[in-house]
Amino acid sequence: MSVLLPTIDQIRDAAARIAPYATLTPVLRNDALDALVGARLHFKCENLQRGGAFKFRGACNAVWSLNDQEAAHGVVTHSSGNHGNALAMAAATRGIPAHVVVPEGAVRAKLEAIERAGAILHRCAPTIAAREAKAAEVQQATGAIMVHPYADTRVMAGQGTVVLELLQQCGSLDAVMTPIGGGGLSAGCSIAAHGIQKTLAVYGAEPAGADDTAQSLARGARIDDFTPDTICDGLRTLVGEPNLAALREHHVTVITVSDEETIAAMRLLWQALKIIVEVSSATVFAAVLKERELFAGKRVGLVLTGGNVDLDALPW
Amino acid sequence: MSVLLPTIDQIRDAAARIAPYATLTPVLRNDALDALVGARLHFKCENLQRGGAFKFRGACNAVWSLNDQEAAHGVVTHSSGNHGNALAMAAATRGIPAHVVVPEGAVRAKLEAIERAGAILHRCAPTIAAREAKAAEVQQATGAIMVHPYADTRVMAGQGTVVLELLQQCGSLDAVMTPIGGGGLSAGCSIAAHGIQKTLAVYGAEPAGADDTAQSLARGARIDDFTPDTICDGLRTLVGEPNLAALREHHVTVITVSDEETIAAMRLLWQALKIIVEVSSATVFAAVLKERELFAGKRVGLVLTGGNVDLDALPW
Repeated sequence: MSVLLPTIDQIRDAAARIAPYATLTPVLRNDALDALVGARLHFKCENLQRGGAFKFRGACNAVWSLNDQEAAHGVVTHSSGNHGNALAMAAATRGIPAHVVVPEGAVRAKLEAIERAGAILHRCAPTIAAREAKAAEVQQATGAIMVHPYADTRVMAGQGTVVLELLQQCGSLDAVMTPIGGGGLSAGCSIAAHGIQKTLAVYGAEPAGADDTAQSLARGARIDDFTPDTICDGLRTLVGEPNLAALREHHVTVITVSDEETIAAMRLLWQALKIIVEVSSATVFAAVLKERELFAGKRVGLVLTGGNVDLDALPW
Repeated sequence: MSVLLPTIDQIRDAAARIAPYATLTPVLRNDALDALVGARLHFKCENLQRGGAFKFRGACNAVWSLNDQEAAHGVVTHSSGNHGNALAMAAATRGIPAHVVVPEGAVRAKLEAIERAGAILHRCAPTIAAREAKAAEVQQATGAIMVHPYADTRVMAGQGTVVLELLQQCGSLDAVMTPIGGGGLSAGCSIAAHGIQKTLAVYGAEPAGADDTAQSLARGARIDDFTPDTICDGLRTLVGEPNLAALREHHVTVITVSDEETIAAMRLLWQALKIIVEVSSATVFAAVLKERELFAGKRVGLVLTGGNVDLDALPW
């Protein structure tokens, strides 16, 4: 697979392309959390994005980047939830079919949302190989265009609009941090960050049980034989090859956190910010709490990636 | 007690006075909830206000309306939680003491927040008479200025800034709705609404077990012998005399909802909006769901009043 990284201009184009459909999400500040960390935190609330996650940005950019002939057969993807939902919603904005391959064991609330958004679900075993095989099968049967959750130029460009918007909303920052799963958000945001402000430090947060990016960066080569084990269902994916290249090029520092640290951070976010963030999103706050000396006195943008939570299965 | 109602100019002055301290809270839209109700809903998120509730507006306006001599002895109030917390936070912005009388049985998370904000707590029995007696006692002992939770011109003016801001954010609306407890928010918002847009229909939502306002309006006189019984802890107060006069003058229509309807509405708000609202706040959404024919096709502003919830005691 050879996927080009998006440029800052492609990210700006993506921002214009998705503007009619995406929500301009608010940035929240909180004195109590600032005091706890000893930094000035700016929470970019992608949990308040359409579909409850940043994923709508990349999916929407991909769907509206297709020409009419490409679009006619619809789109297909495999996703543990939020990207599938996002692609279903994005396809609906253009009136084209969406096929979503979902692994067994995905969060029930997310699957229901994907079906409500009008997508056709295709179930498969919860392995990366099974997902990719099933998606290829659907693609061949329908002629739908594959929109990969993260190893896709259009998707990365769309996700990069998060940091573009964040910097427009709060001016310059010292650092930004996103969670890292497949690395679509992190790659897009790194490129956006340095396209606007070369001095911005870019961080990623990874669950200790899904630290393939940290390991891949340390080793200098992508690990592809690894089974993630974390409560963070949105981050149980290996970083993509093009994504890893972007993180290397932009000197992204990865901080790993335990699931216990993430759950505690999630609860703090709910209590202080009065918003619902899913467990994967809380990794960034867990990371600044864990490594607070890195951020002392700094202006830090934290991307809260999603809010799709099963209210009957809270992790505390 | 003779308390003047604020004018629209006093509400505009309040907006300017609190601007350095209060949060400009976002207005959220949601396609799924619009479809459910058949109206265009604009959720004004005062759960994202400082202290997690709209009450900071009124308290802040009261604290900064005092002259230096008045302010020196501090402020005192009685409150089931959010107003007490708000007054503590507002007093802290001016560096003056805050005394808060709290009834036994108030939500633990709220009491902890009041203490963290630096107030001195004074406990009393959970009756309105006991609260007022205790507050008078503290007032006499300390010389603190009483800032009543709702029957106070400065407080009503501060609460009215919610609708002032909402209309600035989303242009004209067909209707606005707030929950009604003591009526400070409802009175201030009615005056603000009609000061800006005479055609705006103003609604209030009241728990069926605390429907003293609906009864008082129907009877033409304020009921003062009534013990509220509702899960909505923020609305267990009788409407104030000046507040009732404002609601009558502005033809506020009160819709009553059962606690069951409110709890179901609260859960829907959490799931769809990805924000944490307390049970009292959900009365407004329960009311539009219950009386949806009243709002069909209309642009409706709903004030979500607070987000201070005990995460270990969710009502579902």
